[in-house]
Amino acid sequence: MAKHEGRSTKDRGWLRQLTFGLALLSATTLAAQDADRLVTSALSNTRAYETLSYLTDEIGPRPSGSANAARAVHWTTAQFRAWGIDVRTEKVTVPHWLRGDEHARLVSHNDQKIVLTALGGSVATPPAGITADVVEVNSFDELKQLGTKVKGKIVYYNNPMDLELVKARHSFEAYSRAVIYRGTGASRAAEYGAVAALIRSVGSASLRTPHTGAMRYDPKQPKIPAGAMTIEDAELVHRLLARGDRVRMNLVLTPKTLPDVESANVIAEIRGSEHPEEIVLIGGHLDSWDLGTGAIDDGSGVAMVMETLRIIKESGLRPKRTIRAVLFMNEENGLNGGRAYFAAHKNEKHVAAIETDAGAAAPTGFNTTLKGEALEAIVTKTKTLDRLGAHRFEYAAETGADTSFLIDAGVPGFGLVPDPLHYFDYHHTPADTLDKVDAKELAQDTAAVAALAWSIAE
Amino acid sequence: MAKHEGRSTKDRGWLRQLTFGLALLSATTLAAQDADRLVTSALSNTRAYETLSYLTDEIGPRPSGSANAARAVHWTTAQFRAWGIDVRTEKVTVPHWLRGDEHARLVSHNDQKIVLTALGGSVATPPAGITADVVEVNSFDELKQLGTKVKGKIVYYNNPMDLELVKARHSFEAYSRAVIYRGTGASRAAEYGAVAALIRSVGSASLRTPHTGAMRYDPKQPKIPAGAMTIEDAELVHRLLARGDRVRMNLVLTPKTLPDVESANVIAEIRGSEHPEEIVLIGGHLDSWDLGTGAIDDGSGVAMVMETLRIIKESGLRPKRTIRAVLFMNEENGLNGGRAYFAAHKNEKHVAAIETDAGAAAPTGFNTTLKGEALEAIVTKTKTLDRLGAHRFEYAAETGADTSFLIDAGVPGFGLVPDPLHYFDYHHTPADTLDKVDAKELAQDTAAVAALAWSIAE
Repeated sequence: MAKHEGRSTKDRGWLRQLTFGLALLSATTLAAQDADRLVTSALSNTRAYETLSYLTDEIGPRPSGSANAARAVHWTTAQFRAWGIDVRTEKVTVPHWLRGDEHARLVSHNDQKIVLTALGGSVATPPAGITADVVEVNSFDELKQLGTKVKGKIVYYNNPMDLELVKARHSFEAYSRAVIYRGTGASRAAEYGAVAALIRSVGSASLRTPHTGAMRYDPKQPKIPAGAMTIEDAELVHRLLARGDRVRMNLVLTPKTLPDVESANVIAEIRGSEHPEEIVLIGGHLDSWDLGTGAIDDGSGVAMVMETLRIIKESGLRPKRTIRAVLFMNEENGLNGGRAYFAAHKNEKHVAAIETDAGAAAPTGFNTTLKGEALEAIVTKTKTLDRLGAHRFEYAAETGADTSFLIDAGVPGFGLVPDPLHYFDYHHTPADTLDKVDAKELAQDTAAVAALAWSIAE
Repeated sequence: MAKHEGRSTKDRGWLRQLTFGLALLSATTLAAQDADRLVTSALSNTRAYETLSYLTDEIGPRPSGSANAARAVHWTTAQFRAWGIDVRTEKVTVPHWLRGDEHARLVSHNDQKIVLTALGGSVATPPAGITADVVEVNSFDELKQLGTKVKGKIVYYNNPMDLELVKARHSFEAYSRAVIYRGTGASRAAEYGAVAALIRSVGSASLRTPHTGAMRYDPKQPKIPAGAMTIEDAELVHRLLARGDRVRMNLVLTPKTLPDVESANVIAEIRGSEHPEEIVLIGGHLDSWDLGTGAIDDGSGVAMVMETLRIIKESGLRPKRTIRAVLFMNEENGLNGGRAYFAAHKNEKHVAAIETDAGAAAPTGFNTTLKGEALEAIVTKTKTLDRLGAHRFEYAAETGADTSFLIDAGVPGFGLVPDPLHYFDYHHTPADTLDKVDAKELAQDTAAVAALAWSIAE
């Protein structure tokens, strides 16, 4: 403010500030009231759970390229349309990897069965399998030290998930640390002449339960089959080797990679009343792994996102900015949906990208790429999350896989954080089924997503 | 005491009683000291766990009639012999049921996979399976009401285990109530023309985990295939039916019943010094189901029983009565070992039959068929169990399956009671593996069995 200004000017300045402040307060209050109304609406019904039920029970597993994935695209599109919400599909070309037989036995130990599953993307063994000695390593360093000693052998990466971290609810950190051998372990072992690679399932619980997940080949190395043993079987092999036994395994994995399939992202939106060109994106992914029915990964995310749009539509409220739901295809083994969305929409103005792909336990808050004042503004605007016990915002460099392309381009990212304690008990396993989701908690998650999206859109 | 006895006589009587009392006290004290020494010995090593490791990791699953069951007979016999303990085998003819393919899918629901397992003893479907509608019943009454409406259909018995009872540690009661449809459900459904019968797995935990177990056919009814769906799949079918969907399943189960096999009980003993003809029997069973490696059911029992004899032998102590270890064959699907033992030994004087077939969690005490003073005497004699937190004796009509023939003939029965909280999480599943057993707890169980056996043998 200039030094020579007289009193009346100052007064007018003060008055202007007061008026602006009151208007802002009033707008904020109104937005908060509306967000709160959406929270109440989400909590008052079990529609998200019904949506999830259809995806998991009626459709079933939805791996990329499958008929079920196509059914999911079709059904979710039809649902949005039935709710009177603008919806379209956008083409995504996806890989089509198909699981085959998968079994193994220790020919050195009375043909004792080894329970395992192929990693997504793995090539096949011959139909009668590979029979080879198993060599255990605990790290890439150890692999390197062994070098060509692994030639002709099955390399087994024994890297347990840190369950203390999981108990402390740093489940995703524990996962990140444990999963490193899944993606590149096969090619690294192939470099030294290994004939197959196995990991210890990356999970926090097991009743002889295999945990699958994506792997990728280094084009410079021979492609060798890759699988994940259950924790029990991984520990059995470890004990036998530790005892000095020679462990020889017959390994049968017969997946196929079929030609790519034309699939789609599903995009639905409620246009903004004031700034329709500004987009608040909320997203989850339609595809799942094939072992379970993808209830927590990520049918729940899809259900939250769909239900958020439905309750906004039902409320008659109109956000100032556009709230856009994106149901991504192919998160699990390619991220082609996230990539295709970014390619098509990178020039649009995305105000925020909210992703929900971490299960459906009770919400605790959000991860976000925002820091400092920007983050504080969000915290202030989303007081209604207190009702849900979901008002914790924590900084994270990554807030979602499908939205990572947007985040990398500078869009503020948010990721819903449901209680992560049991997420990796079920993640990528046959046990990822509807019964793992509580309808009430899913409604709370939906409420959290709706409240955040609404608050940002206002 | 006669009325006319003089004082001196009375005095002598009093003196005699005192002397006898002191002698008894001294004998009891000595027996207690020795029992305590055995407890210390059991707790000071991990030999029971090493025995169990060999049975489960090196040999593997030991279903009746299998090569592994024969290996278990051979190895345990050799172990007793190596320890310098008298051992022999006694012939038992056992069934030889061999699991085949087992899978199912809902043809009415996009071929969604149903995870299940054949019940032990089931006949097979044709190789391409049976395809039929599924009808759910919750009781035999409901089945009866439906009557011939189940003709041509797959009858599904949906009888959940009461998890509240399990939490209250009445796991075996919860099991008894839930398991009733497993044994006779197929024949009861066949009576009304059903083409197959499925139960909901009888277990207290599931990560899409099938729980198998024995079934038997009523010779008057047609034999139809019988299986157990995992809890997840059972709930899925329930939800679909509850929603009004028609549920049509293709069910493939191809087990075979091969000719009976000659197998054996393994019987080892340390002869009594004063009353060798009086026998304290301690028993577990060598056979297991085929899905897991039978660590808790009942490799642990075998390990406890073997280790009990080993530590007595090692201690140089000699019991007054004979302590006899019986490793029964075919507990799971026939009880032929228990029956054969009884036929051969019913005329011997069994002072007690102690069975351990309830897992290897920390010991809490014993079930027993004794009551009143007889029970009190045992409680007094086994104070050393206090050290183990295993001094609770509770009356039960049944204390074990293999020893039930002896018990029915009037022999006092005892059954070790390890903490039952998690037993039915693993029982009869692929997850019954060594990692479920804690070496320390197994040593405590061994100590409890040794202390009780010794106390009775003295």
